[in-house]
Amino acid sequence: MADGALTPEQILDTAEDVLRRFGLQKTTVVDVARALGVSHGSIYRHFPSKTALREAVASRWLARVSEPLGEIAAETGPALPRLRRWLEQLIRIKRGKVLDDPELFAVYHALADEADAVVQEHVGKLVDQISRMLSDGMVTGEVRFSDPRAMAWAVLRTTMVFHHPAHVGHWSLPEADVDRAFDDIFDLITRGLTPTEA
Amino acid sequence: MADGALTPEQILDTAEDVLRRFGLQKTTVVDVARALGVSHGSIYRHFPSKTALREAVASRWLARVSEPLGEIAAETGPALPRLRRWLEQLIRIKRGKVLDDPELFAVYHALADEADAVVQEHVGKLVDQISRMLSDGMVTGEVRFSDPRAMAWAVLRTTMVFHHPAHVGHWSLPEADVDRAFDDIFDLITRGLTPTEA
Repeated sequence: MADGALTPEQILDTAEDVLRRFGLQKTTVVDVARALGVSHGSIYRHFPSKTALREAVASRWLARVSEPLGEIAAETGPALPRLRRWLEQLIRIKRGKVLDDPELFAVYHALADEADAVVQEHVGKLVDQISRMLSDGMVTGEVRFSDPRAMAWAVLRTTMVFHHPAHVGHWSLPEADVDRAFDDIFDLITRGLTPTEA
Repeated sequence: MADGALTPEQILDTAEDVLRRFGLQKTTVVDVARALGVSHGSIYRHFPSKTALREAVASRWLARVSEPLGEIAAETGPALPRLRRWLEQLIRIKRGKVLDDPELFAVYHALADEADAVVQEHVGKLVDQISRMLSDGMVTGEVRFSDPRAMAWAVLRTTMVFHHPAHVGHWSLPEADVDRAFDDIFDLITRGLTPTEA
């Protein structure tokens, strides 16, 4: 491949393939360069270190989670049904990733442990999105007045069993069991979010 | 030591010491026997396999969590303040264990992955205890009528970030941050548990 044509996206696509095949520990920048038929210098031109490349891979993977969710958060209309769709979509994306491509999921889980700043930024985006929906709900009176950011953290934390990679064992339960558990928790937290006089 | 005097409790105490020093992977029944000055046959008389010994160690450790909680659950008086004390005590026990003896905590976390049936039994006990408090609250009208077992699961799952070993990184946050996060979540779930007309 001509180095001039090499884009960051192509490097990240290839890095993802190589990681899936070799795993996180065994993958080097040289492996990625070899798979692309370029010198490792061509990779370093875009990503100055192995860490930078890994963080970019993790960041792109997490963006595939946060971007579709951002679209739901930015919709208009009732806030609590939107929050429910948002959480269901988050769960669907995570569950889909682990069931469709468990090897890559395991790599990303390990990668996330290393790329802590990238994960924190991602979680920050999710909290912003939930805050936005809760703030909308305060305006319409669907959600009681409170600190929307603190409540957003509480919503993300109370549903952790459905989307935090540490609980991946839970996601492979029969769909009906996960759905039932989610219904119970969503019921609990939406009742908690609703003004008492409603 | 005279084998005749050897009690299961002594074996478990020593097994815990040996696990703390050697770690889960390197500890054998022979190591435990040597530390006690007995033959490995003396251990096998009480615990028929290495797995049985490990499960007994895990089971005793988990009992130290569930037993003091069981006393709180069995108290009388208002159900929701009791549930709050129960959760605070659960968090205090787990936090204490990891801060006071991180090596042993790491061993138990690894052990819990192996002794799944033991962990399931433990979680079942915790769910029973929460169910009992919620059922009491339904009788007094503090808690809305619903399926107390399903709600108990929801309470345990929504507070997972504070007591599931996978989130141990979170527990070392400054105490004030953890307390604030717990207050927000407890507020959310107790409002969710309370009848709407209250």
